[in-house]
Amino acid sequence: MSILEKVSSPADLRTLTPGQLETLAGEIREFLIEKVSATGGHLGPNLGVVELTIALHRVFDSPVDPIIFDTGHQSYVHKILTGRRNLFDTLRQRDGLSGYPDRAESPHDWTESSHASASLSYADGLAKAFELTGQTERRVAAVIGDGALTGGMAWEALNNIAEGKDRPLTVIVNDNGRSYSPTIGGLAHSLAGMRMQPAYDKVMEQGKNSLGRLGAVGEHAFKLLHSFKEGVKHAVIPQELFSNLGLKYVGPVDGHDVRAVEAALSYARDYGGPIIVHIVTKKGNGYAPAENDEADQMHSTGVIDPLTGRAVQVSARGWTDVFADELIEIGRRRDDVVAITAAMAGPTGLSHFAEVFPERTFDVGIAEQHAVTSAAGLALGGLHPVVAVYSTFLNRAFDQLLMDVALLHMPVTFVLDRAGITGSDGASHNGMWDLSITGIVPGIRVAAPRDGTRLVEALNRSVSVSDGPSVVRFSKGAVPPDVPAVDSCADYDVLIAAEEGHLGAVDSLKVLVVNYGPLTAQSAAAAEALAVEGHVVTVIDPVWVTPVSPDVVELARNTDLVITVEDNGVHGGAGQMLARAASEASVSTPVRYLGVDQRFLAHGSRGEVLAEVGLDNDSVVEQVCGWATDEVRRRAEASDVS
Amino acid sequence: MSILEKVSSPADLRTLTPGQLETLAGEIREFLIEKVSATGGHLGPNLGVVELTIALHRVFDSPVDPIIFDTGHQSYVHKILTGRRNLFDTLRQRDGLSGYPDRAESPHDWTESSHASASLSYADGLAKAFELTGQTERRVAAVIGDGALTGGMAWEALNNIAEGKDRPLTVIVNDNGRSYSPTIGGLAHSLAGMRMQPAYDKVMEQGKNSLGRLGAVGEHAFKLLHSFKEGVKHAVIPQELFSNLGLKYVGPVDGHDVRAVEAALSYARDYGGPIIVHIVTKKGNGYAPAENDEADQMHSTGVIDPLTGRAVQVSARGWTDVFADELIEIGRRRDDVVAITAAMAGPTGLSHFAEVFPERTFDVGIAEQHAVTSAAGLALGGLHPVVAVYSTFLNRAFDQLLMDVALLHMPVTFVLDRAGITGSDGASHNGMWDLSITGIVPGIRVAAPRDGTRLVEALNRSVSVSDGPSVVRFSKGAVPPDVPAVDSCADYDVLIAAEEGHLGAVDSLKVLVVNYGPLTAQSAAAAEALAVEGHVVTVIDPVWVTPVSPDVVELARNTDLVITVEDNGVHGGAGQMLARAASEASVSTPVRYLGVDQRFLAHGSRGEVLAEVGLDNDSVVEQVCGWATDEVRRRAEASDVS
Repeated sequence: MSILEKVSSPADLRTLTPGQLETLAGEIREFLIEKVSATGGHLGPNLGVVELTIALHRVFDSPVDPIIFDTGHQSYVHKILTGRRNLFDTLRQRDGLSGYPDRAESPHDWTESSHASASLSYADGLAKAFELTGQTERRVAAVIGDGALTGGMAWEALNNIAEGKDRPLTVIVNDNGRSYSPTIGGLAHSLAGMRMQPAYDKVMEQGKNSLGRLGAVGEHAFKLLHSFKEGVKHAVIPQELFSNLGLKYVGPVDGHDVRAVEAALSYARDYGGPIIVHIVTKKGNGYAPAENDEADQMHSTGVIDPLTGRAVQVSARGWTDVFADELIEIGRRRDDVVAITAAMAGPTGLSHFAEVFPERTFDVGIAEQHAVTSAAGLALGGLHPVVAVYSTFLNRAFDQLLMDVALLHMPVTFVLDRAGITGSDGASHNGMWDLSITGIVPGIRVAAPRDGTRLVEALNRSVSVSDGPSVVRFSKGAVPPDVPAVDSCADYDVLIAAEEGHLGAVDSLKVLVVNYGPLTAQSAAAAEALAVEGHVVTVIDPVWVTPVSPDVVELARNTDLVITVEDNGVHGGAGQMLARAASEASVSTPVRYLGVDQRFLAHGSRGEVLAEVGLDNDSVVEQVCGWATDEVRRRAEASDVS
Repeated sequence: MSILEKVSSPADLRTLTPGQLETLAGEIREFLIEKVSATGGHLGPNLGVVELTIALHRVFDSPVDPIIFDTGHQSYVHKILTGRRNLFDTLRQRDGLSGYPDRAESPHDWTESSHASASLSYADGLAKAFELTGQTERRVAAVIGDGALTGGMAWEALNNIAEGKDRPLTVIVNDNGRSYSPTIGGLAHSLAGMRMQPAYDKVMEQGKNSLGRLGAVGEHAFKLLHSFKEGVKHAVIPQELFSNLGLKYVGPVDGHDVRAVEAALSYARDYGGPIIVHIVTKKGNGYAPAENDEADQMHSTGVIDPLTGRAVQVSARGWTDVFADELIEIGRRRDDVVAITAAMAGPTGLSHFAEVFPERTFDVGIAEQHAVTSAAGLALGGLHPVVAVYSTFLNRAFDQLLMDVALLHMPVTFVLDRAGITGSDGASHNGMWDLSITGIVPGIRVAAPRDGTRLVEALNRSVSVSDGPSVVRFSKGAVPPDVPAVDSCADYDVLIAAEEGHLGAVDSLKVLVVNYGPLTAQSAAAAEALAVEGHVVTVIDPVWVTPVSPDVVELARNTDLVITVEDNGVHGGAGQMLARAASEASVSTPVRYLGVDQRFLAHGSRGEVLAEVGLDNDSVVEQVCGWATDEVRRRAEASDVS
C-alpha cells in the first residue's frame, strides 16, 4: 500500500516522517500525471505546489483555518489531501470533481471562482471576521502566485491586510516566475544591495532567461520576487517591498523542500499578525515534458500521453486561430493597429501577432483594468488597439470599458475569446455575460459571428470603426464549417427563407428566428420543427447584436412571433436588445428568448452544459413548439373576445 | 486690469515674472471662491492645486503635451488657464461649463470620466502611442492624488509605466493627505532611515493628526508619501517606493511654491523617461473656511456664503440620512452587521455608523474591488457586511460582485447611493447602470424603494437575507414625502387602483403601470393621462426589481399594455427584467419602457436631465398616450385581419 493511499485527510499527514513525506510527494506527482493525462486539466501548476500543499496541511488546521487558493486551478493537491483522491477519474466532468475549489465538495474549500488576484481580499475579510467574533485561535492562509500579484486588487488587499497588525494572516507568494505564459507582470521592485542565494541560481537563471524576452516588466518582476539577502534563508528578514507595507516577510524558501516550507509556514502561523511567506517553486516540477515546455509548462492540457506529454488528438483549427491569422493580415496593412493582452498572449492567439509585430504588442500583466484604459490612451494617441481577452475576464474592466473608452468614443476593438458556454472550467469561465454588459455601453458595436468567415468580416469592420469601441466575440474550440447565407440584406443574412406553406391558416404563425452567434444548428432545428407544425419560418442572422438594425425591427413587426437564439445569459442579452428596440418602435410582436439561464453553471462538456440549459436541439424543438402552441391559443382566445 | 484677466491661454503664463505668478495665484483663489460659492462645485481640491496647475502649464506645452487629471474635479484651475474663465458662472449647469474635463470644451482636455485611479493608464497608453508613432518630442503628464493611488488600477499602471524606460511620462503625485474625507488608503510604505524635512513639519503634523484617527492605513499612507531624506529638496533622489518600480523620483516639493514646483516639473519633463514628482499640497489652501473644515475641507459644496463658507440653504433630510440612521438601529440589534466604505464614509452616511461602531466599520481606500471581495470574506466568516457605495462606482467591482459574492451565495448587502439621475456631475456620476449590472447576477435581490419608509423596509429585509447578496438603491438628495399604498399584496403595493370606466370599449386598454423607485410622480402622471383618454389604469410598485414576482407576471398577462417606470438605463433594467419574466411565462402583453436613454448624459440639474431623457411629466404623458394610441390601432388592425 502506498503512502498516498493511507492519506485521506490532513490529519493523516501529520503522522508521517520527513522521508515518508518525500515519498508521498513523489506518489502525488505520479498520481497527478496519470490522472490529468487521462482527463485533461491544469497539470503544470499542480506539479509545482505538491510540497507546498503538503506543508500547508501539516501546519494549518484546515478547515478551521481557511486556506484560500488564488486562481484555484492549483488546488488539485489540496483535493487529494482532503479526501477526494478517488474522484480524480471524473475531473472536470459533469457531476465529477471540479477543476477548482468547490464549496459543495468539501468544507476544506472556501471559495470557487478562478478569476485571479481575489484571494487576499477574501483572506482579509475572513481575518477581520475572526477578530471581531473573538475566534482568535483561527488562522487564515492565502496562496497567491507572482502573476496574480500584478492584478490591482491584490495590491488593494495588501494595503488593507497591512492595516490589521494583530490579525493572523499568512500570505504565501507562490513564486514560479510565470503567469500562464512566461509573462510576468508584478509590481516591480529591485531590492538594492541584495544578491541571489547560490541555491537558487538555477531557478533564477531559468526565470531570468524566460523573462528577458519580456523587457522591463519581466525584469522588474524577476528582481522583485527573486532578490534576497545573501545567506539568509527561512529567517524573518525585513524585505523592503513587503515590510514597507507593514508586513513581515519570510523567505525565499525552496518550495520543493517540504521541511523548509513547513518551517517557514509554522513560523508564519504563530507570528500573530500579517506575514508574507515567499516560496520559490517550479511549474511542472518533476515531470520532464512539463519542465521542458517553454510556452507554458503545461499550464492546462487536454488528454495527453503521460510519457511524452503530447496531445493524444491533434486539435482542429479554432476560432482563436482564425482571429490570430487575420489580425496579422490586418497588422500588415495597418501600422496603427496594436494589440494588448492581459498576460494571456498564448491562449488568445496574440503571441503570433507579437512574433511579427513585437513592438506593437503590449502584455500588461493580469491587469484587465489597465489593459482597457491604456487602450483608451493608445487610441487618444491615434492608434487602433485590439484588446484580446477571455469573455469572462472583461467583467473585470467593465467600468473602464464604459467610462474610459466608450464615454470618450475611443476606437478600440475588443476581441472576446471563450464567449458562450466553455464547459469544463465551470461557472467562472463561461463567457455568458459579455453581451449583457456590453449592451449597457452607449454607442458600442458588438458582433457575434456564427462562423470563421463572419469572424474575419466582423474583425475587419471593427478595426475600421473610428468613433467608438467595437466588440467581436466568439466561442472556445474548433471553428465550425461556414454557414452561408441563402440571401443577404444590408443588415442581416437570411439563413433559411420562409416557405409560404400554410400561410393564412388560423393556426399558422409567421415566425422569425433571429440567430446570434454559433448556435446555428439550434436555430435550424427550431425552424424545421416549426415548419413541420405548419408555421412559416424565416431564420436570419444579423451578425451584429448592436446597433439593432431598423430593418430587423420591421421584420419583427410583420411577424407573429420572434424567437432569438444566443449563447449568452438571457438578461440583457442579444434577444432583449432586439426586444427593446422593437418596443421602442411600438412593435408588439411577442419575443421569446433561447439563451442561457441566468444562473451559475456547473462544469461539464460544452454539449452537456448546453443540454442542461435547454440549448440542445431536442430541448430547443420542444421549447419553440410550446411557445408557438401557446401563442396560437392566445391569439384564438383574443380573437374570440373581439 | 488684473493679471488673471490677461491670461487666456498657457502661453500668456510664460511671460509672467515670479512675483506676477504669486499675484496670479492669489487672484485665481479669489476667483474660485467667488464663482464656486455661487454655483456650488469642488472647491477644496481646486484651491489646493493653484500653483501646481500654473507650473504645469508653464512647463508642459498643452495640448501638444497631454496633461491628464485623475478624478477631474481638480481641473478648474486648468480650465481657467486654458481660456474658459468667462464660463465659470455656468459651472455644472446645463449647457454650461462641465465640472470635469470635457473634450468638447477644449483641446486641452484629454479625458472626461471622474472615476478615480485611471489617469496613469491613459498616460501609459498615450506615451506608448507617441513612442510608436515617432512623436518623441511630446511629453505626457498625469496628476494623481494620494487617495487615488490606493486604487488597484493605479498600481497596475505604475508597473507598466516602469516598463517603458525611454518613454517620457511624468506622474505628479498631488499629495494632500486626503481622499474625500481625511481617510487615506495608500499602499503603505515606510521609508527606512528617512526623516521629515523641517519645512513640511506643519503640513505633516496636520496630516498625521487627521490620519491618526484612521489607524494603520492612514499611518502607512502618511509614511508612504510624507517621508523623505532630510535636507534634500527638488533633487532627484532614489525614493525607494518608486525607484524600486524602476521610476525616478523628485520631491517632495512644496506645492504652494510655484517656482519650486516649476523647477521639479522642468526636470521631470526633460528627464526622458518615467518619473514621479511628489508635490505636497493643502486641500482648501488659502481659504480659511475650507482649511478649517475638518470633515472634507470643502471637497464639494453647494451654494455657499463666500465669507463664511456656510451653506446658503439648509439641506432637507436626504435618502442618505434615512439609510444612515436605520443602519445604526440595525447595528444595535445585530452585532454581526458590519459596514464597508471605499474612502467615502461621509458621503455615504457610514461615518455615523462608524462613530457608534468604529470596530465594525472598514474603510478600504478608493478600492471598490477589495471592498466587495473582502465583504465576501467577512460573510464567509459569519458576518453580514453592508457595502455602501455610489451606484456608479459599483461598476468598478462588477466582477467581484458576480464571482466573489454571488457565486458563493454570500449574504452581503449593497447600498447604492446616488442611483438614477444625479445631474450636475455629468455622465460619469449618474447611477443609471446599477439595475442592469445587478440584473445579470444570478440569485441577487434588488430593491428600488420609492420613499423613506420603503427604504427602511428594504434595508431590513436585505440584512435578513442569508443565502446571497441583496441590493438597495436610492437617489441623490432629499427623500420625498412617503407615497403610501392604497392596497397591498404580498409582492407589490397598489399605488393607484383602476377605475372601471370604459372597460370593454374597443378603444379602451387595460394598462398596468409598474413603478420602480422614486419616479412616482411620473407614474401617476402617466396613469392620469391614460385614464383621461378612457383607458383603465392600475399603478403598482413591487419595490423589489428582482426576483420578479409571479403575481406581477400574472397581472401583466391579464392586461393589454404594460408600462414600466424607472430611472435606470432601459437596457437590462427593471422593465426588461419584468419583460423577460413575462416572456418566459409565455405572456405576450406588449411592454413599453419609461427609463433613461442608453447614452451618456451631459451635466445639468436633475430635473433638466430627467426632462432631456423624457422623464419629466409632460414628456411622460405624451409618450404613454402615443404608445396607447399605437396599441389601440394595432389591435384594431389585427382584429380586421382576423
